[in-house]
Amino acid sequence: MSKRNLTLLTDLYELTMMQGYFYAKDANETVIFDAFYRDNPDGNGFAIAAGLEQVIEYIEDLHFDPEDIDYLRSTGIFKEDFLEYLADFKFTGDIYAVPEGTVVFPREPLVKVIAPIMQAQLVETALLNIINHQSLIATKTSRIVHAAGGDGVMEFGLRRAQGPDAGIYGARAAMIAGCIGTSNVLCGQMFDVPVKGTHAHSWIMSFPDELTAFRTYAKLYPSACILLADTYDTLKSGIPHAIQVFKEMREAGIPLTFYGIRMDSGDLAYLSKEAKKMLDAEGFTDAVISASNDLDEGLISSLKNQGAAINSWGVGTNLITSKDCPSFGGVYKLAAIKDKATGKFIPKIKLSENEEKITNPGNKTIYRIYSRDSHKIIADLICLVGETYDENNSLLLFDPVATWKKTLLAPGTYTMKEIMVPIFKDGVCVYHSPKVMEIREYCKKELDTLWDETKRLVNPHEVHVDLSNELWHMKTRLLEAYHFE
Amino acid sequence: MSKRNLTLLTDLYELTMMQGYFYAKDANETVIFDAFYRDNPDGNGFAIAAGLEQVIEYIEDLHFDPEDIDYLRSTGIFKEDFLEYLADFKFTGDIYAVPEGTVVFPREPLVKVIAPIMQAQLVETALLNIINHQSLIATKTSRIVHAAGGDGVMEFGLRRAQGPDAGIYGARAAMIAGCIGTSNVLCGQMFDVPVKGTHAHSWIMSFPDELTAFRTYAKLYPSACILLADTYDTLKSGIPHAIQVFKEMREAGIPLTFYGIRMDSGDLAYLSKEAKKMLDAEGFTDAVISASNDLDEGLISSLKNQGAAINSWGVGTNLITSKDCPSFGGVYKLAAIKDKATGKFIPKIKLSENEEKITNPGNKTIYRIYSRDSHKIIADLICLVGETYDENNSLLLFDPVATWKKTLLAPGTYTMKEIMVPIFKDGVCVYHSPKVMEIREYCKKELDTLWDETKRLVNPHEVHVDLSNELWHMKTRLLEAYHFE
Repeated sequence: MSKRNLTLLTDLYELTMMQGYFYAKDANETVIFDAFYRDNPDGNGFAIAAGLEQVIEYIEDLHFDPEDIDYLRSTGIFKEDFLEYLADFKFTGDIYAVPEGTVVFPREPLVKVIAPIMQAQLVETALLNIINHQSLIATKTSRIVHAAGGDGVMEFGLRRAQGPDAGIYGARAAMIAGCIGTSNVLCGQMFDVPVKGTHAHSWIMSFPDELTAFRTYAKLYPSACILLADTYDTLKSGIPHAIQVFKEMREAGIPLTFYGIRMDSGDLAYLSKEAKKMLDAEGFTDAVISASNDLDEGLISSLKNQGAAINSWGVGTNLITSKDCPSFGGVYKLAAIKDKATGKFIPKIKLSENEEKITNPGNKTIYRIYSRDSHKIIADLICLVGETYDENNSLLLFDPVATWKKTLLAPGTYTMKEIMVPIFKDGVCVYHSPKVMEIREYCKKELDTLWDETKRLVNPHEVHVDLSNELWHMKTRLLEAYHFE
Repeated sequence: MSKRNLTLLTDLYELTMMQGYFYAKDANETVIFDAFYRDNPDGNGFAIAAGLEQVIEYIEDLHFDPEDIDYLRSTGIFKEDFLEYLADFKFTGDIYAVPEGTVVFPREPLVKVIAPIMQAQLVETALLNIINHQSLIATKTSRIVHAAGGDGVMEFGLRRAQGPDAGIYGARAAMIAGCIGTSNVLCGQMFDVPVKGTHAHSWIMSFPDELTAFRTYAKLYPSACILLADTYDTLKSGIPHAIQVFKEMREAGIPLTFYGIRMDSGDLAYLSKEAKKMLDAEGFTDAVISASNDLDEGLISSLKNQGAAINSWGVGTNLITSKDCPSFGGVYKLAAIKDKATGKFIPKIKLSENEEKITNPGNKTIYRIYSRDSHKIIADLICLVGETYDENNSLLLFDPVATWKKTLLAPGTYTMKEIMVPIFKDGVCVYHSPKVMEIREYCKKELDTLWDETKRLVNPHEVHVDLSNELWHMKTRLLEAYHFE
């Protein structure tokens, strides 16, 4: 498990295509690739971009070690000239991206790579792997945190994550999207985020009886004393024993600052309400009642609707795997090729039997349009780099498919912000990644720019992603040109 | 992305419990933990154990670096004595496990850890993370490979995997369970498995036209010439251009050894049948017709039922994430504590509101019982270590819940094999992990020990996992003793 040079973390076809470009065309031809996605996971109204910091690390570390070259040679697919080229490979292009924690919508570029075609092609797979994973988990987490209302949500999924990285970077994404802590110690160490956790059933079982186990734990950790109450019988044994220990602490004058119970099985609505009654009856009205066990946004919403007395949620499997929708469909598509003679980008389009797989051509950026009053998002506008807008003019938006659907924004009613920022210039990173807890704060503000209707977990209001007039006409010309051929 | 000491890849509570054991009890108390799972993923009839090699690497590398100790100190949770203990920490226990590639069933231990409680507790999270992930993907892959009949299945999921490890170790598990290759170059390098792939839509789009792109590719890679046919229009453009190139190769005397088309969109049944007709009409009857695009075992079965002319399958997202069931519910439960005085293991049981969460106590192993004639599995028998069986005697099996359901196996009609093997003895690895392609061969043989009815993708026949008479009585005694308390 020691290899961490991720340069070979790529599909073989990236390398066979690279070799093809090397021998068959001008390998320095500059191209533009867009990474974007087609549908929000889980039927959500938006997604949260995440993973950029790891993409930056990957790009900065790109290099073929001698053993990588040896391995590629051993496949018999690659020629020596090309392998020599790889030995000196480094990324020299430009990258633009939407910052981590930004709310994003389908079909808009999250990352744009402008580089010689061989470089731009190589990075496809790893870039998608990283962005897809972290954006998926951030988006799922935001749904769970939304369902929990103001209650704290802790990420507890490491044991069910799809391998070590899924645990580590999944927890990172979960923190970005609003978890208050993770059980994952390595994630805590790597990203300076709060780590949480108390004890498991094995702690209880390793003592002669539950009361001894609780007492021992309370003595060791009096200031963070959450006792797991369901090892034997929650209402008959766990809660009474926990209450007994809290009483003993109170009698001994130990301050009960952060204390309570956790339940990991049974009917959490019923048990939590009963537990709350029992705790209240003894004066422990501020006890934490924490629940885990296959929670997700649907179950949390449902438990809250039933008046469950839970105020802290430990969410594992369904968060860390995004169980209902375990993939984020990010793709990476060629958008333009630079003409050597003119220096201009020639837009490229990918047609498809599946209409939703048709791409947006050209060198693009994204403007986000906000209501000046509410600061909520009105729409996103994908346009060509170089187009200029003036908030003092009116702005006509139209649906790129149902083009008769138009919205005219009056001057002074809206503001615009370009949401893609430069990350690499000529192979040099020009972006400083914020710390995870800073991204978390930024993400919270980003969520405030969404209408409640877009945050609804089921059948949310869709935010419009429109094309500029210029881009729409260019795309239409390319589509029609192909069909006339 | 550089940290690969995975010692802190653990839930915080493992460390808080360790500290608890350190201060509150004999930290050298020897315990037994079992890792097992409760339900086969995807309603499958079995699972395939995988990930042991990575568990071994993890255990062998377990150590707290000075910066790990510093980090733990910085949390304010841990005391100096305990941190000093961690600085010298190493694993000194025994581990038994079912070899990778073995077919396994719910409730039987896949891994058994016998170690001082602090050590056994620490390894829980990472051990589960690794085994859960790889067993999940191996099981999913076996379903997909089964649906594909004899056709080759390639693993193409890296870009949609949940992070780099999910791609790397997911591809490893996919190879174990029968894929013929993976697109993942890093996996190929690390595990010496075949890597596969040709080109993407961007290759086609980067040339002035499709025919030029195909010709260029064919010239570069004549001996592995699979052309992606759906960039513009599969039947009107892609297939005719591919046929034109194959004709040119034939006319130029280039041997057409491995050639054909790949389709990544549209109706794969219709398009493949039309493509097959067009290829056949020109004499290209042995062309590979490869398909990708959101395939899984259900869609492959359905396409085959409709007579799709596809003979090669590239499966990505749904395999690498195990989309319909993205987690393997492996758990790790205390089974026994060694009595210092007698040296005997005292069995431990975990009760639960949820009946299926009740554990099997004691120091256990698994015997697999085969039909002597067919060599198919009759049942698995979980028993206590030290119980002996003789194939020359009759063997009475009974259902552990519906105990009146009995089966008497006559002498000479069955064979038995213990399927757990020693992995670590006193902290030293005593097991040699086979190479992935060897495990793949072993797994193929393992699948032959299942009846077809158990391999059915929907509603398969369940293989019995019984408890020995001795174990069943011990468990019953413990359950009743608790309820009498």
